[in-house]
Amino acid sequence: MTVIIQGRGEPLVLDPLGFVRAIGERINPSGNKKLLNALASRDWAYVVSEAQRQVEAGADIIDVNVGGGNIDEAAVLPEAVRAVQEAVQVPLCIDTRNNAALKAALAVCRGRPLVNSISGEKVVLDTILPVVAEHKLPVVALCMGSGGIPKTAVERVKIAHQALEVAIKAGVKADDVLFDPLILTVGADDQAGRVALETISLLRKEFPRNSITGGASNVSFGMPLRPVLNANFLAVAVAMGMNVPITDVTYPELRYALLAADTFMGRDPRTRRYLRYFRSRSPESVSGGH
Amino acid sequence: MTVIIQGRGEPLVLDPLGFVRAIGERINPSGNKKLLNALASRDWAYVVSEAQRQVEAGADIIDVNVGGGNIDEAAVLPEAVRAVQEAVQVPLCIDTRNNAALKAALAVCRGRPLVNSISGEKVVLDTILPVVAEHKLPVVALCMGSGGIPKTAVERVKIAHQALEVAIKAGVKADDVLFDPLILTVGADDQAGRVALETISLLRKEFPRNSITGGASNVSFGMPLRPVLNANFLAVAVAMGMNVPITDVTYPELRYALLAADTFMGRDPRTRRYLRYFRSRSPESVSGGH
Repeated sequence: MTVIIQGRGEPLVLDPLGFVRAIGERINPSGNKKLLNALASRDWAYVVSEAQRQVEAGADIIDVNVGGGNIDEAAVLPEAVRAVQEAVQVPLCIDTRNNAALKAALAVCRGRPLVNSISGEKVVLDTILPVVAEHKLPVVALCMGSGGIPKTAVERVKIAHQALEVAIKAGVKADDVLFDPLILTVGADDQAGRVALETISLLRKEFPRNSITGGASNVSFGMPLRPVLNANFLAVAVAMGMNVPITDVTYPELRYALLAADTFMGRDPRTRRYLRYFRSRSPESVSGGH
Repeated sequence: MTVIIQGRGEPLVLDPLGFVRAIGERINPSGNKKLLNALASRDWAYVVSEAQRQVEAGADIIDVNVGGGNIDEAAVLPEAVRAVQEAVQVPLCIDTRNNAALKAALAVCRGRPLVNSISGEKVVLDTILPVVAEHKLPVVALCMGSGGIPKTAVERVKIAHQALEVAIKAGVKADDVLFDPLILTVGADDQAGRVALETISLLRKEFPRNSITGGASNVSFGMPLRPVLNANFLAVAVAMGMNVPITDVTYPELRYALLAADTFMGRDPRTRRYLRYFRSRSPESVSGGH
């Protein structure tokens, strides 16, 4: 029912029925030239500042992904993990599908990180899954197999069932498997958002004990006013059962959507957490009476 | 499956599977002293400006409610309806549970308005329902009976079934009944949002042909940063099946939430409507790349 992960600080509970936990997505060089350059030149000060900004904005977990350009993941990922862990106390999400990089990162990572991700592709199952099982870590399973990303929610959930079975067989605890429904942009396929939401809803029904993650920002790729589209999408995704979104809480709209969703989904007793958050902000940000 | 309403302009289709249609809530004096004074002094210029502002901001229907203070609804409601209809072309929602006021308003109202609302209380069923049936109008049924507002979604939906039965018996067409799940503030009951959303979800399942409405703004009463809480709540309510929300689209957050929800729920072919909306705005409002 719950999964406990940990960095250098307090343990963090991932609970499908509890508060949303946000994975901060900013340490990922895809489409981010500045970060790519920082990683290529080992500019850890910049990478670390991105981690700190996210924690200050409310990220519960920091995703660390160094894949892109000509970067040697196996060499750079462990260095990035070490640098980020020196700077922040929250748990990490080690985001790679490079087996050597994962092993090297886990060798230096403290606490109990999350691993992102496995898919149903044979090469991933053969390389990443044994490492995850050996370290007894929680892992994100993408709802895609060797045939790519299925078009329908039903097909994606079928793959989730297969992934869970394979993971258990490899020695991973059932609850330690998180699912990612795969969120694609509505700019390329106007049904992409609906299919992702239907997948979340179906995953929540068929796997009540498992956490659900996913990158909400993808939904708006190429569209105007992305943070607001992402925020409304996130609120819906959370209401449908996603509890560990990968997002960028340095955008207030996104941080707010997560707090709001916990509040109106009835998970915030006497709405205390919501009120405490807004009381800690500047007076201007809490006005706008209506 | 669909309900057609009309003001002086084009007919408007209410369709549970189609675009969201927003009922503008600003012509309602409860908690609005300025409007109460305007209504009491027959300052139609002010009332009309509120209607026009809402239509310009994207309201599809204008709610007209004059109940409050010492206002003689039966005298003022028809005057308000006449004034608003002279100024805007969209359909109206005649919002009263005063039988004499409803009759007087319908006597001057053009087109085919929506009537808001009936409840399961005997006095309402005995007075409002026959008028609605006689005029063959669509009507909003609140999920509350003579015992007040039930605590659970299941009980609310049970009342919806009873209301539909009573309405049909009175001569109202089944599809012409819209349901209101009753949205209360999370500030008084931290489960209020969840119960409303569960009611919407259950109503959508049990009444696939009927439209669902409701006042999303109630959810945030007494809370900080209301428009943003309302916007995220609205996006979820729409995703769960609400297609005719009562809201205030003069707040960009709320207009945006409705457009975004239609987009990521797959109802906007090639996302053309969303893109057209943002292209018609100022360049600043569509920036914020992310």
